[in-house]
Amino acid sequence: MNGLFITIEGPDGAGKSSLVKRLNAAIQKETTRPLVMTREPGGSEIAEEIREIILNPLHTKMDARTEALLLAAGRRQHVVEKIRPALSRGDIVLCDRFVDSSIAYQGQARGIGIEEVKAINEFAIEGLRPDLTIYLDVDAHVGLERIKDKKSNRTQDRLELEEITFHEEVRKGYSKLIEQEPERFSIIDASKDEDYVFNETWAIVQAKINE
Amino acid sequence: MNGLFITIEGPDGAGKSSLVKRLNAAIQKETTRPLVMTREPGGSEIAEEIREIILNPLHTKMDARTEALLLAAGRRQHVVEKIRPALSRGDIVLCDRFVDSSIAYQGQARGIGIEEVKAINEFAIEGLRPDLTIYLDVDAHVGLERIKDKKSNRTQDRLELEEITFHEEVRKGYSKLIEQEPERFSIIDASKDEDYVFNETWAIVQAKINE
Repeated sequence: MNGLFITIEGPDGAGKSSLVKRLNAAIQKETTRPLVMTREPGGSEIAEEIREIILNPLHTKMDARTEALLLAAGRRQHVVEKIRPALSRGDIVLCDRFVDSSIAYQGQARGIGIEEVKAINEFAIEGLRPDLTIYLDVDAHVGLERIKDKKSNRTQDRLELEEITFHEEVRKGYSKLIEQEPERFSIIDASKDEDYVFNETWAIVQAKINE
Repeated sequence: MNGLFITIEGPDGAGKSSLVKRLNAAIQKETTRPLVMTREPGGSEIAEEIREIILNPLHTKMDARTEALLLAAGRRQHVVEKIRPALSRGDIVLCDRFVDSSIAYQGQARGIGIEEVKAINEFAIEGLRPDLTIYLDVDAHVGLERIKDKKSNRTQDRLELEEITFHEEVRKGYSKLIEQEPERFSIIDASKDEDYVFNETWAIVQAKINE
């Protein structure tokens, strides 16, 4: 039996975290198949240590290529320790961010180049592909406004401090990926409210589970 | 004015550390050109944090490709923060281990493949090449015996705990690199004593400095 690998993608402020929580509950109600919820960067002990280096706000000298390599390193460990074993058991794996994030953020928005970032990630994942990727599409301004509202009472991490143009480039990166692999992506209009986003997504995920 | 980039390579126990110390003193006596002494993994604040993750003996679950990506990430930061600025100023940079170590250890000895490890390192260094690489050649058994003698009073790190066959593969990896780029490498017989190794190396380095 093969597992089902679903990833959630989108710019910051698109509403990934709350969507993931609701999907978690809905999937567990729908099926007895084991569900592994996880997220990147992180997802295993070593990967979480790498995550801390990446997100540390003091690391202002971090080069974009260092960041891309660290993300690929954490991803490799996450795939080996957690994602592949779960898929081999036949579990459903729901992952908040995966390779597409690196390509949109580091490849496009930080300007390293989409193909170069793809190549180092291919080294890390060795052919692993999500069966379904939910892309939460939201205008960069809307996304950033939501982040500000939500996080006014805690310190923003380094990646969240980026400017609006950066977030527009992130969105452009995702658009390019969707052009390359339209069959893998389901695009959700995430400028709408949480209920709408959940209902649209759930219809797609539910169909995939019962395929 | 261009800098001079010299790297020291070889299996564990070849005597790199003591050689580097003597070279440091000899270079400073020979020339007023600034000298930057550094080492990998590590060499900058972020790279040292990455080093700690790599060498932590508790990380027994670390995958070989994770290790290779972390080494490339630390290397990138080291190149950007320290090596390239020094070479641009015209300094001499003496570095204990560089890309060749990753190719010999992860590419050959851990079996990932030389070309694959080269590719992720090319992403990290973007064409930077040492002007001269001193390779300390020593039989794996001799190297391991020296490590045991020297470090009997402290904990060995994770990489040092590898078996003899692993160290033989490391040596094979270096041999392949030397075949590919014979003009870059100077091979020193490091089974001989420290004075011999230093004198042979110093003759080559001194000539290079005064070229």
